[in-house]
Amino acid sequence: MAGSPALARQLQVAVEAARSAGAVIAAAFHRPKRVEHKGPADLVTDTDRRCEALVLDAIRASFPDHQFIGEEASADAAAHLTDAPTWMVDPLDGTTNFVHGYPFVAVSIALVVNRAAVVGVVYNPVLEEMFTATAGGGAFLNGEPIRPSDTSDPGSALLGTELGVQKDDATLGAVFGRVRDLSKITRSLRCGGSCAIGLCNVACGRLDAFYEIGFGGCWDVAAGALIVQEAGGVVVDPAGGPYDVMARRVLAGNGHLTGALSAVIRDGVLGPKEPAAPGS
Amino acid sequence: MAGSPALARQLQVAVEAARSAGAVIAAAFHRPKRVEHKGPADLVTDTDRRCEALVLDAIRASFPDHQFIGEEASADAAAHLTDAPTWMVDPLDGTTNFVHGYPFVAVSIALVVNRAAVVGVVYNPVLEEMFTATAGGGAFLNGEPIRPSDTSDPGSALLGTELGVQKDDATLGAVFGRVRDLSKITRSLRCGGSCAIGLCNVACGRLDAFYEIGFGGCWDVAAGALIVQEAGGVVVDPAGGPYDVMARRVLAGNGHLTGALSAVIRDGVLGPKEPAAPGS
Repeated sequence: MAGSPALARQLQVAVEAARSAGAVIAAAFHRPKRVEHKGPADLVTDTDRRCEALVLDAIRASFPDHQFIGEEASADAAAHLTDAPTWMVDPLDGTTNFVHGYPFVAVSIALVVNRAAVVGVVYNPVLEEMFTATAGGGAFLNGEPIRPSDTSDPGSALLGTELGVQKDDATLGAVFGRVRDLSKITRSLRCGGSCAIGLCNVACGRLDAFYEIGFGGCWDVAAGALIVQEAGGVVVDPAGGPYDVMARRVLAGNGHLTGALSAVIRDGVLGPKEPAAPGS
Repeated sequence: MAGSPALARQLQVAVEAARSAGAVIAAAFHRPKRVEHKGPADLVTDTDRRCEALVLDAIRASFPDHQFIGEEASADAAAHLTDAPTWMVDPLDGTTNFVHGYPFVAVSIALVVNRAAVVGVVYNPVLEEMFTATAGGGAFLNGEPIRPSDTSDPGSALLGTELGVQKDDATLGAVFGRVRDLSKITRSLRCGGSCAIGLCNVACGRLDAFYEIGFGGCWDVAAGALIVQEAGGVVVDPAGGPYDVMARRVLAGNGHLTGALSAVIRDGVLGPKEPAAPGS
């Protein structure tokens, strides 16, 4: 699966860390979390912290000189990504799903070296799905190679995104305007509540494309984006430029679709906002 | 579980029919369906027809004088619902999910007598979740009693709906305007691609509410709506009036939320479109 002994070992450590954290999530998943007013936040926070500690301790034990960027403990470091080996960890992606018992939750772990992901692991412990990838080594679901769909017609495409997180009127208008336009040219929409799982669903062909603008941070996207790329898919900025793991913007899909979708995200269904040049 | 020997027997026949059809769906679920241009439609159509035949044959063998309304065979009968015992059957709810391998697919079976559902079964054979209800007998997931959430603050609510099915500009504008307004007052949105499963997710508290306007027919909603009601939830028209199984409109939730949500669906976030009466 991995292209070098070093990558293979890094992947193994990440997979084992994801399984440890996943066991904690799975054990807490079916417990009521909203019966008492104080209880639920505590259980979520407690699960998040326990999972992050498990992942970080496991990685530090094997790679004591590596850096970390994570939602829970080290978000400040997000502004300081260097070329050094850096682990981007979301110990519990899909917190709202976790609270509600909706089955799309994941541990997301990526190793980034020279600002490019080389190991990606996304583990859903409720559905027992382990997505893995290493740079140059392909992408796998529970050990089986995966690949994106071959849908080339946007009208047949199932598109994933996330809606309803931001609440100010201007952002709501922009978000729902974009998704209304995308909805017009695609078959149907799915909103599952986990960016990491949305990307993995593209990698294995359940979704033809997924996009999100304004998610929490690089820890939500770093592992899933590598898994898409290694499965044979394409990851770009939603407006069509290059993907940047730190930009909190992502569009992933099979190679047939991302161009048409980014054009709609950028310009709407009525075409570019700039008038055509004279004579064009 | 059931309030009378007759209901218990009708429920048992429905559960066994759902399991038979579910086995066919589960066996086909992981097979590629989009590799060949002709192949996929055939596999979907074939699975749908085989499942409908299994369900209808099982029910007819036990209740030869009952009526049927179903998406596949008997859609014309939808205009002719009578007081006679009538089975409303969707042998494969979530066809798009089935094609893409997205794990929200279900067999939906309801028995309606005197125009009211008395038996409801929704079975997801991929996640192996069997939701059941009988009139007056409560609602169950895999045999365990279920109940809706107790969320009373819309701002904490997880709302399910379906987006992107209809494509004309006027409908798109109305659909996305409504969901933008609902998004403003709720926590987050989920779009899973199955009306029947969306309703069952309300019944067991994974979603705080679910609404959809313009789904395929009564077979999508009849079983799930009874399961919500028997779990202790509320089912109304999205604009706030009484629920009508034949209207292709549904809003389900816990009793704290449906009033606030239907007001937004009816009036938007800016309040009623009609000016207040003088002196009010």
